[in-house]
Amino acid sequence: MTMKLYGFWRSLASFRVRAALMYKGLAFDEIPIDLMRGVQHEPEYRAINPQSVLPALIVDDGAPLFESLAILEYLEETHPAPPLLPTDARGRARVRGLAMIVACDAHPLIVPRIRRYLEQEMHQDEPARNRWLSHWTREALVVLESHLSSERETGRFCHGDTPSMADICLASQVFAARFFKVDLSAMPRVQRVFDACMTIDAFDRAQPLKTAGAPSEPMH
Amino acid sequence: MTMKLYGFWRSLASFRVRAALMYKGLAFDEIPIDLMRGVQHEPEYRAINPQSVLPALIVDDGAPLFESLAILEYLEETHPAPPLLPTDARGRARVRGLAMIVACDAHPLIVPRIRRYLEQEMHQDEPARNRWLSHWTREALVVLESHLSSERETGRFCHGDTPSMADICLASQVFAARFFKVDLSAMPRVQRVFDACMTIDAFDRAQPLKTAGAPSEPMH
Repeated sequence: MTMKLYGFWRSLASFRVRAALMYKGLAFDEIPIDLMRGVQHEPEYRAINPQSVLPALIVDDGAPLFESLAILEYLEETHPAPPLLPTDARGRARVRGLAMIVACDAHPLIVPRIRRYLEQEMHQDEPARNRWLSHWTREALVVLESHLSSERETGRFCHGDTPSMADICLASQVFAARFFKVDLSAMPRVQRVFDACMTIDAFDRAQPLKTAGAPSEPMH
Repeated sequence: MTMKLYGFWRSLASFRVRAALMYKGLAFDEIPIDLMRGVQHEPEYRAINPQSVLPALIVDDGAPLFESLAILEYLEETHPAPPLLPTDARGRARVRGLAMIVACDAHPLIVPRIRRYLEQEMHQDEPARNRWLSHWTREALVVLESHLSSERETGRFCHGDTPSMADICLASQVFAARFFKVDLSAMPRVQRVFDACMTIDAFDRAQPLKTAGAPSEPMH
């Protein structure tokens, strides 16, 4: 069967899975779940993913896969070529660590449920919420810049000269930076790696604003 | 050389690495970095981990490893027995997904830098900050309970009858629940798996309140 990705143009975790699927040349259908209209909370989608978050990937008649990096690891194990992890354990640890700076420590802070809590429970106005979003988006990129600038494994991409899970995550975080108008001028290596990513056809086609349903201009 | 873990009794991500090291029977020295006194921001530790977060693991004369789940994957690849991941790709995806519900979507919301931002930038008083901490701590456990109760792979542990990365993460999240006085009575499977975890000597010895430097009672 063809794999089914539950995603949304605006979801950066969905971008990560979409980019990996396209990079590995895997066929899939994408079913949009409109995060802005709250469709992820409807019973139909909760039956797919009880956490009400994107993405989810259906690969067979078993339970859907969830959590973007867990899905990337699954795709890497079942469709190893082209690879998204280096072959050595130390290199794999570095790539996974860089990926998790984004996927664990930064992206979960800017998702819809957090913004809703800040607005509804903490009564933060829109400027305060936007400061939160750009602060944490920027923090992760500063840390990535620090790793990329000080570690000899950095190449054309985060780790050597071929793209990896770390590059997929870096690219997703740069998309967040664009949504929230974060200034990247002090992060030349992040910018350079992002530019290298966007020369890859799969990364380009997978990007939020080229995904079905996207507006011509991003909204906050 | 003996591995060196930069950790802290109160750091749940440090618990995850400590538990894996002990479970796999690996020798290591732990160097405490006092998160409550802000030692993670001092230049000496920033040179170890530019993100100023715990843990970091030194395994050789190369750069320190960072991000708890990336470190767990490294330990699994370099010291596969006893395993912390199942052997099938689908099972591994489920275990990693459950682990990431904690390590990506929940734990990063309750760490010191977030609390500091809520206090200093958003002027949230202590009760409001405590509501935030217990809300997100509980959310992840509710989602775990939903997976554990509905999926046939659940056994004595999160995935079958042997412990995995998912159990290490579940246990770390239950410790958070205790710190923040989250009521677990509606989560019988989470509690049962946690109890099973704590019968394992390594999990028991690794736990926050049995780690050097811990007080006899946890503080918020």
